[in-house]
Amino acid sequence: MSFRDFAHSKAIQLGKEVIRMTTASGSGHPSSALSIMHAVVTLMYDVMRWDPADPWNTASDRLVLSEGHAVPAVYAAYADLGGVVGKSPATSRRLTLADLASLRDADSPLDGHPNPAEGFPFFDAATGSLGQGLSVGAGLAIASRLQKVDRRVYVLIGDGESREGQIWEAMDMIAERGLHEVCAIFNCNGQGQADYVSPQQSAERLAEKSAAFGWKVVTVDGHDPDALKRILTERRDRPLAVVAKTEKGWGCAALKDKSNHGKPVTAKDLDAAVALLDETAARLGIKDRSPPAPTIAKPAAAKPMLRPESRPMEFAAAMKLAGLDGAVAKGALATRRAYGAALLAIGESDPRVVALDGDVSNSTFADIFAKKHPDRFIECKIAEQNMVSAAAGMAAAGFVPFVSSFAKFISRAYDQIEMAQITRANIKLTGSHAGITLAADGPSQMSLHDVAYFRSASEADDGRGRPVCVSFHPADAVAAYHCTWLMAAHEGMCYMRTHRPDVALLYAPDTRFEIGGSHVLQEGDALTLVSAGYMVHESKRAAEMLAKDGIRCTLIDAYSFPLKTDSILSAAKKTGDRILVVEDNYIGGLASAIAEAAARHGMTRVESMTCRKMPKSARTTDEILSYCGLSAEDIAQCAHEKIK
Amino acid sequence: MSFRDFAHSKAIQLGKEVIRMTTASGSGHPSSALSIMHAVVTLMYDVMRWDPADPWNTASDRLVLSEGHAVPAVYAAYADLGGVVGKSPATSRRLTLADLASLRDADSPLDGHPNPAEGFPFFDAATGSLGQGLSVGAGLAIASRLQKVDRRVYVLIGDGESREGQIWEAMDMIAERGLHEVCAIFNCNGQGQADYVSPQQSAERLAEKSAAFGWKVVTVDGHDPDALKRILTERRDRPLAVVAKTEKGWGCAALKDKSNHGKPVTAKDLDAAVALLDETAARLGIKDRSPPAPTIAKPAAAKPMLRPESRPMEFAAAMKLAGLDGAVAKGALATRRAYGAALLAIGESDPRVVALDGDVSNSTFADIFAKKHPDRFIECKIAEQNMVSAAAGMAAAGFVPFVSSFAKFISRAYDQIEMAQITRANIKLTGSHAGITLAADGPSQMSLHDVAYFRSASEADDGRGRPVCVSFHPADAVAAYHCTWLMAAHEGMCYMRTHRPDVALLYAPDTRFEIGGSHVLQEGDALTLVSAGYMVHESKRAAEMLAKDGIRCTLIDAYSFPLKTDSILSAAKKTGDRILVVEDNYIGGLASAIAEAAARHGMTRVESMTCRKMPKSARTTDEILSYCGLSAEDIAQCAHEKIK
Repeated sequence: MSFRDFAHSKAIQLGKEVIRMTTASGSGHPSSALSIMHAVVTLMYDVMRWDPADPWNTASDRLVLSEGHAVPAVYAAYADLGGVVGKSPATSRRLTLADLASLRDADSPLDGHPNPAEGFPFFDAATGSLGQGLSVGAGLAIASRLQKVDRRVYVLIGDGESREGQIWEAMDMIAERGLHEVCAIFNCNGQGQADYVSPQQSAERLAEKSAAFGWKVVTVDGHDPDALKRILTERRDRPLAVVAKTEKGWGCAALKDKSNHGKPVTAKDLDAAVALLDETAARLGIKDRSPPAPTIAKPAAAKPMLRPESRPMEFAAAMKLAGLDGAVAKGALATRRAYGAALLAIGESDPRVVALDGDVSNSTFADIFAKKHPDRFIECKIAEQNMVSAAAGMAAAGFVPFVSSFAKFISRAYDQIEMAQITRANIKLTGSHAGITLAADGPSQMSLHDVAYFRSASEADDGRGRPVCVSFHPADAVAAYHCTWLMAAHEGMCYMRTHRPDVALLYAPDTRFEIGGSHVLQEGDALTLVSAGYMVHESKRAAEMLAKDGIRCTLIDAYSFPLKTDSILSAAKKTGDRILVVEDNYIGGLASAIAEAAARHGMTRVESMTCRKMPKSARTTDEILSYCGLSAEDIAQCAHEKIK
Repeated sequence: MSFRDFAHSKAIQLGKEVIRMTTASGSGHPSSALSIMHAVVTLMYDVMRWDPADPWNTASDRLVLSEGHAVPAVYAAYADLGGVVGKSPATSRRLTLADLASLRDADSPLDGHPNPAEGFPFFDAATGSLGQGLSVGAGLAIASRLQKVDRRVYVLIGDGESREGQIWEAMDMIAERGLHEVCAIFNCNGQGQADYVSPQQSAERLAEKSAAFGWKVVTVDGHDPDALKRILTERRDRPLAVVAKTEKGWGCAALKDKSNHGKPVTAKDLDAAVALLDETAARLGIKDRSPPAPTIAKPAAAKPMLRPESRPMEFAAAMKLAGLDGAVAKGALATRRAYGAALLAIGESDPRVVALDGDVSNSTFADIFAKKHPDRFIECKIAEQNMVSAAAGMAAAGFVPFVSSFAKFISRAYDQIEMAQITRANIKLTGSHAGITLAADGPSQMSLHDVAYFRSASEADDGRGRPVCVSFHPADAVAAYHCTWLMAAHEGMCYMRTHRPDVALLYAPDTRFEIGGSHVLQEGDALTLVSAGYMVHESKRAAEMLAKDGIRCTLIDAYSFPLKTDSILSAAKKTGDRILVVEDNYIGGLASAIAEAAARHGMTRVESMTCRKMPKSARTTDEILSYCGLSAEDIAQCAHEKIK
């Protein structure tokens, strides 16, 4: 049987499954799925080297379905091939065609959009928020180079989806690095959700754009299996953009109209829709409806990347290694600088560690790592969305990516971060110049919502008994150093917030830090001051002022979420159950966490000082703190009022 | 004097001011500013039609400085021209050259990056988080067409910055709509912050890309004033991309090395740096150092867009107008659908209202407005970042943009939303399919962090006595209808969260809603249940179950932030100061707001049920609520435990 006949036959067979499973689930996108059917068949049954029995083999060729809503096509092929599903090899089983009817069920591994963590390990990343898959593919390909693995990466992208700027960030990254193992397939079915796609996303325009971005471009009939196979298996020395002209609802005339986006066939119309696919088969001259599958080429064996059995380097040794021992001796160091030193130290013992930064490595101090390990430093340029999704791709290949930028610019990628959370990607984000203390550059460079944003995810379970995202907000270089090690040790997403200014060292070098932890820096009887990051120093100054008036405060550094609040409430007992929380960000972070815990019992009174005013530029940190009512004087005054 | 000599002379003069002011402030980006000096001079002294004495005239040609860090170049020109600064015409004054030394001062209108709201009305938008300016320009140009104003828009974009995908989203939008009044000037100085720019952002590559996106492209020497002037004044029928080859630190050899990004000259080196500019002048043969400025062409008079003096349409009339009276009569309607009906009603009386949507208007129901007012509906396709920044541009021109997408995809534009907050842009965001209740599509389509994110901004003052962002979370169609009117009436950013499922009507059509408000839906004595949005219905079901056990609950719908918590705490007094807050999102929202208020006094006990588990697909809303432990049964059980 020719490959053409096989592929058409399979497309018809699986197309029926697509229609049936979406009807069974009562929702889904059969028309989109039908438009990628030939590409999926050509890839999964022939071109890709992979093993349906071992989807965890990271040496396999990868398929990233950027237009995640078309996933029923992949589910159908995977079930037909007996692919393995499950959250771990120990609990895995082969998917059957009968399982397809469980699409979108609460206990099904077949989520509405690709969702590897719910038991579909064939995928490397959750997709469905559009425009992110090619960046994941970029990360997988960069990983291939580092691992010296011959792993090809195929990314299916919708034409409408290619309006997302992130696609073009990824096109840049892949071209720049010459990652010719990446193939982007633009699925040009011409239809979006609400309307036809724009002429700016036509097949012709996408071809021109891809060429202008430095890619090899081939335009094909996306329902011509021979053409697809030929193009996908040709040798090439540049990344390949396949502009595939397709039909939404291919093979099923009832699904071709643009009103069908995201609509399953009704149970009543199911038989008629399936019959239309049979008509298509007849028109194509396909007789054998259940041809044997071609032999799928097996991948090489994966080389697992294991966590090294090493203990954290001591703080002093690490600072010396980074050339920061002089600064430490003087007693002041910015937390962002300690982050760079920690990254270097961790990278020494753990080859899985890579660093990604967006043209600000000399501000975030990721460059301390980059200078020593240029091979493991990925300069992502000014494209934060692509950076985060590429990190997720690298994590899927076994790396431990540390991603840095200004905390403000990390917010550029919150959607990508949320998708990486769904993937349970083991990535570490560090936002520098956080809060208002960078002063002079002004609010366009200040992160103010970030503490609330990341804390919200810290209180949800990721299904493995761990927080969806852990976060850290170190007050000094020692804390930043150890928190960076905690990020490396923790399996799951972490966020750390560092600051621009140099700050005094508060901690002994071997102080112990932990997720959700806090430290009592001094004890008093009048009031408990709780803070994090830079504001610990400002609170300490306030406590010193208050001490001169005979008011002794307990001072707590609560540097991590999900915060263990019990010890803080206990400490506050000695200060008459009175707490004042001080933050350099908008509300929703530390003060909220402590207020929630306090209000559960109703015994402790919690007052807060957060950034309650839109900041602007100021020449110095002290000026902007005063402008926002967060100076040591302001804190001391608030404390005075509170203990009256 | 020739224009060439004038422009060089002015570039030298202003270049010195740039160097001096950044040295005075101790921070800033003189080398970037010098690279755009000729473009700024050519535009502000010659090509643009504008009035330094009236920067509020929205009929003027516009300059958007996307690479905001280069702003000292504009400040210097503006001061030289005696441009007016101030937060309002009543408090305005002319900027002088002496004022430039106040750059980045806490009380200066010359913020570190463009920041119109701090008193620099020449700009339409805060910039500094890169890649957003061209989208603002797109919005301004779309506004021009609607207003029938001949307003040209010039956008200065860094070469490194053009790695941001959002630039290419804007290139698409502008080309698609044929907005030939837009001119993008790519400032190709070849240097980023940490390193040289990528070959992917070379002048040649940017020219190829711009052509592939459908733009007219001209490459020039960016320090050749005659060439710049000629190109910028040529008639054209397509949007124009000027690829300007420039030098970072133009005219001042000491600033040309790539190590100088973002570094001012030290006070010690100031005279030498200034002298280098004199050397450049001599080399160019420029003798007259203070030539008279050319006459700047005046703009047409602006036609102010005023708020109409109309009262909100009644709910029933609006539903009828939208063809939803049948659904209302049946007693159930999704909040997202009521949003669409409200938008139509508001648009009838207020011509300033425009709607922007990203290919999901048939899900958000912005299409109810679009069908009636296609001219005021801006289909932004799948590019949410561009959509939000374009809305900010339209707001700067006097429109009231309503922006809609899935709440999850609104998160794609949080960075842009934060920049619009700094601008104090009067835009209205509505995220549909919020929270977990859309069920089947799974977590890639669910917004979970959004309530915490937007609440954080609701508690900060925007400098005008208003919240940085107001938010709404209506529980039924009546509430959604009135909250949409509240968004229209409020001057400032608003966010509204709507849900996918149809829900019962809870409110009489003429119920009064307000920012920060809440409604007591029923009164009891055992426990106060507080909720918002869909979860009000689930909480109501729980209250009904509890009533069967003789437990009478007060039920409160707290639909807006910044929440007035006093009335809620008062209501809870009648239920033994016991509150249970129920939410379908991650923590940081309603429960936090109430806990913060309760903990201030320490009298009320607040327990919360929020989404504390990463969700997945489920077939129905009830299934996913059960999966996340948020069903009516779960709420009732928690209530039982709480009142024990």
